[in-house]
Amino acid sequence: MKLNCDLGESFGAWQMGLDEEVMPHIDMANIACGFHGGDSDVLARTLMLAKQHNVIIGAHPSYPDKQGFGRRSMALTPQELSNCLHYQIAAIEGMAKVQGLNLEYVKPHGALYNDMMADKTILTTVMQAVASYPSPLKLMLLATAKAEQHQQLAQQYHLELILEAFADRQYTDDGQLVSRKIAGSVHDKPALIAQVKQLLATGCVTTQSGKQLPLHADSLCVHGDNAAGIALIQEIKALCHTR
Amino acid sequence: MKLNCDLGESFGAWQMGLDEEVMPHIDMANIACGFHGGDSDVLARTLMLAKQHNVIIGAHPSYPDKQGFGRRSMALTPQELSNCLHYQIAAIEGMAKVQGLNLEYVKPHGALYNDMMADKTILTTVMQAVASYPSPLKLMLLATAKAEQHQQLAQQYHLELILEAFADRQYTDDGQLVSRKIAGSVHDKPALIAQVKQLLATGCVTTQSGKQLPLHADSLCVHGDNAAGIALIQEIKALCHTR
Amino acid sequence: MKLNCDLGESFGAWQMGLDEEVMPHIDMANIACGFHGGDSDVLARTLMLAKQHNVIIGAHPSYPDKQGFGRRSMALTPQELSNCLHYQIAAIEGMAKVQGLNLEYVKPHGALYNDMMADKTILTTVMQAVASYPSPLKLMLLATAKAEQHQQLAQQYHLELILEAFADRQYTDDGQLVSRKIAGSVHDKPALIAQVKQLLATGCVTTQSGKQLPLHADSLCVHGDNAAGIALIQEIKALCHTR
Amino acid sequence: MKLNCDLGESFGAWQMGLDEEVMPHIDMANIACGFHGGDSDVLARTLMLAKQHNVIIGAHPSYPDKQGFGRRSMALTPQELSNCLHYQIAAIEGMAKVQGLNLEYVKPHGALYNDMMADKTILTTVMQAVASYPSPLKLMLLATAKAEQHQQLAQQYHLELILEAFADRQYTDDGQLVSRKIAGSVHDKPALIAQVKQLLATGCVTTQSGKQLPLHADSLCVHGDNAAGIALIQEIKALCHTR
Repeated sequence: MKLNCDLGESFGAWQMGLDEEVMPHIDMANIACGFHGGDSDVLARTLMLAKQHNVIIGAHPSYPDKQGFGRRSMALTPQELSNCLHYQIAAIEGMAKVQGLNLEYVKPHGALYNDMMADKTILTTVMQAVASYPSPLKLMLLATAKAEQHQQLAQQYHLELILEAFADRQYTDDGQLVSRKIAGSVHDKPALIAQVKQLLATGCVTTQSGKQLPLHADSLCVHGDNAAGIALIQEIKALCHTR
Repeated sequence: MKLNCDLGESFGAWQMGLDEEVMPHIDMANIACGFHGGDSDVLARTLMLAKQHNVIIGAHPSYPDKQGFGRRSMALTPQELSNCLHYQIAAIEGMAKVQGLNLEYVKPHGALYNDMMADKTILTTVMQAVASYPSPLKLMLLATAKAEQHQQLAQQYHLELILEAFADRQYTDDGQLVSRKIAGSVHDKPALIAQVKQLLATGCVTTQSGKQLPLHADSLCVHGDNAAGIALIQEIKALCHTR
Repeated sequence: MKLNCDLGESFGAWQMGLDEEVMPHIDMANIACGFHGGDSDVLARTLMLAKQHNVIIGAHPSYPDKQGFGRRSMALTPQELSNCLHYQIAAIEGMAKVQGLNLEYVKPHGALYNDMMADKTILTTVMQAVASYPSPLKLMLLATAKAEQHQQLAQQYHLELILEAFADRQYTDDGQLVSRKIAGSVHDKPALIAQVKQLLATGCVTTQSGKQLPLHADSLCVHGDNAAGIALIQEIKALCHTR
Repeated sequence: MKLNCDLGESFGAWQMGLDEEVMPHIDMANIACGFHGGDSDVLARTLMLAKQHNVIIGAHPSYPDKQGFGRRSMALTPQELSNCLHYQIAAIEGMAKVQGLNLEYVKPHGALYNDMMADKTILTTVMQAVASYPSPLKLMLLATAKAEQHQQLAQQYHLELILEAFADRQYTDDGQLVSRKIAGSVHDKPALIAQVKQLLATGCVTTQSGKQLPLHADSLCVHGDNAAGIALIQEIKALCHTR
């Protein structure tokens, strides 16, 4: 079970996330491409950090909305979305090449991630855009009860998926994340650790309604926003590796 | 003598340049990368147009200043400038690959072009940035009286130069362009045609002071902003090809 | 019947619209504030032009999306939308004061205009934002079959409305504009002139289904994108003034 | 002796500065206007905070360069700079009015501040722009050995100056700040406290070369980036008020 984390989301003089503290403990870095966070300087620094710690790198593209940090849905046409993804993937891929690194996957960010999981037209556009990019790239999606349908759709585009689960978030019965706006949707530390242990031991999570939901996950999404988050990542990592 | 032209400088809903009319008549397209002009959609369309007409493509990167169209000098550090170039080159190179195209060269835009020709530190940063990009890329510079020094500097970075001359601009005695702010610096049509003929026949231009200045140029820069410009491009092309 | 037109939508080096040709013929200028079009230089020039021709000025604020020209819906919270409107209104109001001009009204642009007409929460947010701005400003809305409800809502905020009709667009039975994507939704010149005459003579338009729909309009929206548009504006103006 | 501090420099999801902790202890808030930091939401929150603590508000406008945080010189024409200042001043003035607040002064930010102190053409443009804004606004400048000349220039535009000194920075003999790049240019806490005491008691600072330089300062610039900075502001405030 690989740990993935969103990184490279600082911008100009503004810091976000403890990238230097997180990088040593994760397996996969989802790196912002400059449309919601990141810029050419942040990208170069983040890629160098990933290289030092031998972390697998993925593009973390977004709607073009810095002020909203990519968290506001935008009504892009499929063609606009596809071009917007290609541009961001290209920018990070080339900058990774400068440092001798190979881009391996794409994980959409924020509202685009949510929209893709909720709307099949958008998911299809994202899949086509990633599959039509000339370098072989995987797409990271949320592991839900619809994983098999997503796999079938991906196969039409000869696209390999990476399914991720969330340690800290409560799940609905169909395997979607309960909205952050709802009380109890974000686990405290004991509940989080319990969810990780359960997922590792049984391949299931207990949903909002108390149901055991099987989730096949290739990766766990973790957060490195503060010191407590870093400590938690190390605990989760220990749990994953002792199995 | 190849004709090069700045293209792909539209942005969003704003049109600039008659790209569709120009593309059939030129050999090399300097394509904006989204920092002074262009965006992900414009880039995709411009690359497709270049592909249709079998035109060699180059990156046309800029200082990050859309409002100023890259025409205002900005005090970037060498590291910032290098990252800024890598990001733009990467973005266009990847989007070109999506269409099966190969990026061949880099021609800096506007204030960055002028600053590079005037300031050796900036020129060195640009050369290092282009040379350190992992794909083999040439750098397009102004053909001046200092061409030999530029070639020597480029050789230190194993960088191949493309030297360009301007059909429509008057030259100083050291082979720089006379500032557009000075009366007579931009040739009318007869003077322009005469300068092209002279350059093709003798390898020289007549400078502001009346001196014959030898200029070795690999390419001629032309402009496709309006119908008169397109007509002129066709005339210049005919002159180049009849030799 | 006053003529209103969107103006000041150039940006940096990019021209849009024939503002100098349009301004002499209109009564009200909806001036972009820098979020979808316009910038500090374009604003200053456009305000000066409005002053020369004694044209009433309004703010034409938008979602913050230059690449999409404000034509893509964005999921802003009511608080974000309100702040976004206040910022744009403030910017143009202060720049108008620099030239001794008084801002009189607000007409939202593009996707924000459409969203406001389709979604009462957004309309309410827009009304509150305009009404809570400390200078007395009117709000320009589409004249529809719901005009009376809009007036009642506006009265809650002590807000005066300006209702506008479109000369060149076909109407649905409830007084919304037929989407531009539908064939026949944009009138050719004879149909446009007929619609203006009908509106002036009878206060009605003939809808898509052939129904006579009464529309109380204070203003007619016209477009000055090209020479044909300017000629049309002059014809419409003559029709309005001969009554 | 009033304390002034740069505030409202967060942007979107990115925090900068401890604005809530600083605001209770300062007299004047230099508030970013959205060109180097700040946005419509940050502006609204910062103005509300200033209102709560009854702090005098000033505009803190910048070159248009978010990635560079306004710290990179940009070659704007005088007209561009003037429009750029008017837009930013207008935006904050109107948003202040929404909350019943009155904008009192303008303090340019970063590279624009430095350029204005170093280049008389830029200083003159800034003075003209502030003076031509229709609301009465003061201009905050660095108190240097040239203060009298600056006052004379300002009087030509009927502009009132606020002269500020820096507690934490070493001075050159002509009253400019020693560049941050030079070792010893930023005082440690004891040296900073000593400089404040000296300024309050004698109206002088000891320059780099050991000279006593008289500086008439109306305000002291302080920084609230971290907890140590806040503690220092409180100490400085106590020193100022016990006199």
